[in-house]
Amino acid sequence: MENIKALKTLISFNEAMQILLSNVRSVEDFEIVPIEKADERVLAEEIIAPMDVPHFDRSAMDGYAVIAEDTFGASLHNPATFTFSGSVLTGEIPEGVVERRKCFKVATGAMIPEGADSVVILEDTEIIGDKILVYKPVFPGANITKKSGDIKKGSLILKKGTVLTPSKIGVLASLGIKEVKVFKKPEIALIPTGNEVIPLEEPIQMGKVYNINSYTLSALIKENGCIPIVFSICQDDEKELRKSLEEALKYDLVIVIGGSSVGERDIVMDVLTEMGEVLFHGIAIKPGKPTLGAVIKDKVIIGMPGHPTSCLSNGYMILIPILKKIANLPPKIYKTVKGKLSKRISVTIGRMQFLSVKLEGEEVIPVFKESGTITSMAEADGYIEILGNKELLERGEEVEVKLF
Amino acid sequence: MENIKALKTLISFNEAMQILLSNVRSVEDFEIVPIEKADERVLAEEIIAPMDVPHFDRSAMDGYAVIAEDTFGASLHNPATFTFSGSVLTGEIPEGVVERRKCFKVATGAMIPEGADSVVILEDTEIIGDKILVYKPVFPGANITKKSGDIKKGSLILKKGTVLTPSKIGVLASLGIKEVKVFKKPEIALIPTGNEVIPLEEPIQMGKVYNINSYTLSALIKENGCIPIVFSICQDDEKELRKSLEEALKYDLVIVIGGSSVGERDIVMDVLTEMGEVLFHGIAIKPGKPTLGAVIKDKVIIGMPGHPTSCLSNGYMILIPILKKIANLPPKIYKTVKGKLSKRISVTIGRMQFLSVKLEGEEVIPVFKESGTITSMAEADGYIEILGNKELLERGEEVEVKLF
Repeated sequence: MENIKALKTLISFNEAMQILLSNVRSVEDFEIVPIEKADERVLAEEIIAPMDVPHFDRSAMDGYAVIAEDTFGASLHNPATFTFSGSVLTGEIPEGVVERRKCFKVATGAMIPEGADSVVILEDTEIIGDKILVYKPVFPGANITKKSGDIKKGSLILKKGTVLTPSKIGVLASLGIKEVKVFKKPEIALIPTGNEVIPLEEPIQMGKVYNINSYTLSALIKENGCIPIVFSICQDDEKELRKSLEEALKYDLVIVIGGSSVGERDIVMDVLTEMGEVLFHGIAIKPGKPTLGAVIKDKVIIGMPGHPTSCLSNGYMILIPILKKIANLPPKIYKTVKGKLSKRISVTIGRMQFLSVKLEGEEVIPVFKESGTITSMAEADGYIEILGNKELLERGEEVEVKLF
Repeated sequence: MENIKALKTLISFNEAMQILLSNVRSVEDFEIVPIEKADERVLAEEIIAPMDVPHFDRSAMDGYAVIAEDTFGASLHNPATFTFSGSVLTGEIPEGVVERRKCFKVATGAMIPEGADSVVILEDTEIIGDKILVYKPVFPGANITKKSGDIKKGSLILKKGTVLTPSKIGVLASLGIKEVKVFKKPEIALIPTGNEVIPLEEPIQMGKVYNINSYTLSALIKENGCIPIVFSICQDDEKELRKSLEEALKYDLVIVIGGSSVGERDIVMDVLTEMGEVLFHGIAIKPGKPTLGAVIKDKVIIGMPGHPTSCLSNGYMILIPILKKIANLPPKIYKTVKGKLSKRISVTIGRMQFLSVKLEGEEVIPVFKESGTITSMAEADGYIEILGNKELLERGEEVEVKLF
């Protein structure tokens, strides 16, 4: 029967985030991936265009390539008349040049023959016998995409740090670039702890619970551009935890789940104090208060509470911004919807609150049961953040829901 | 020199979507995946809880398990006195029972010993000699998560069609469920066409362009829960296209890129008319007008314009809703931001417009150049949809940007 180990003074959510974010490092290692696997990855190099796009003057429309001057003054009543002297389909190289009052038929995307400076669209022409009549004048350059009009050779077209999207991958393809350097995905070590936690492979026993948090956090880590490295369940034993931590330090971030509360056998705090420096223990958030930040040999360790709802809401509030930073990704932008609270919510003053909610039409229904449950999260569509500076949120009050 | 094949009457965007959505089928085939790979997948079975969670009465706090009645009337000045008769750590099975005026020390998550009906939290107690003093009364059930308080055995806990998220994977883990049935990811055939299109592996040649659209659409398809099956580039040749289409019909949707305009060698329309039924040709959208919908043997074929911007904006506007339906996924919810237009935009009346824009602070800057460019999309952060029912959007007008 020992005395109670109380949590040290709680620090604010913002303070905790500032400490953690300033201690983690963004990955610098890169890997080379083919562009078809590069979507959502972060460029680790700048892309200088190796060629012009298009690399020839190209027709933007189906029509006739002409010398614009020959169309000046053309009208419905007084069409300009041209003689047909060839045609160019897309992908072909034109044979011959366009001379005064002569025209080449060109398809959309086809190369403009030498001599021509504009394209009259088909709809403004008519074929009468062996003549082509043009009913509207065009200006020089009309309906032509000039060489390098899209991308200029030698220009910086994608910056280092750019997050690749379908269109940016299209830019790479347009330049004939088959593979790119991207930052490696950070590897995040997850160490589940607790004598009560058993793997899914075992039959359930009295007093035991299945390992939930490794699965919830792994999914969250993957959704945010990182790779989870899941350790086997660590018993509440200092030696075993020390061994796991030593192994885990080679990854980009270490998360220890459970054991960071104040119970008799909570050994995470002791081991971290011995191996490195504990930066804080206890954040003014609800749920998720017994959260711990530490550093061992420049590597950040986050101690998460073992309660499934506390652990996962910490995942959303604390972990995602850190994962994004390590992965060189911009901060997450949430999909949000507005709605009205279905009932009055009492707030714990001074603690930032993460309240899981369900949406039914306009109504925002709190579904939080207690930190120890998983359904508090699983029945929710998203959550609202309550800043903890007023005592109540009234029924009917408008709130913004961040969707999971 | 043939005559012009004009696009048939344009149909509205909504009409086109209705036609396509009513003709595609959601996948029914399923596969079994381990839960660590099930995030963002769609459940193809209902999950009935095979056990209670928790499956024993569990302490929600560190404290003492007692009979609540023995604490009634306790106060700071008149504490209730208990004798210590054992302790239970998390994961252990309690030895002995709690009798009147006796208590067991319990850790958070520990099993409640028989006899006890409540837990007094440590902070409300004091140890004096061999007695435990309790300063606050508790009601029966206090600080206990009852057996099945989170999930009740036999209850329908996740419905068929549920999209799995970190928390829902947590629910599966809490029940010891290692793997689940999920719908197979739809396979989407992509057939790039055009004599001018060459693979990235080849050196660039005059008149040719690299295959851009296969890469942009592939990335988009992957982002939306489907698998792209990319065919090799099909020449503008009816026989070759017919062969590719026959092969492609085994996939869940077929996309033909290029050749659906009105050019001389646009053979997509002819082949589709011959092999099946063309549902529409031409949608009142900008860019992306020359888009075609067809059906061959109950399989939907979409003909996309070959212009990179037209093709990809079609991807966002037309393809995503279809992919989601085929994949059994709910409609995409966009991340949006509001801002003010940096300049006046003239609108093509009667055509729904997809305008790619860049964000600079509050300012929304149109970056659309022309359909044939890729940078019109790549320099954009998102797009605005303009309904085509008014002629102008004024500078400074508030618009909602859907982020890519």
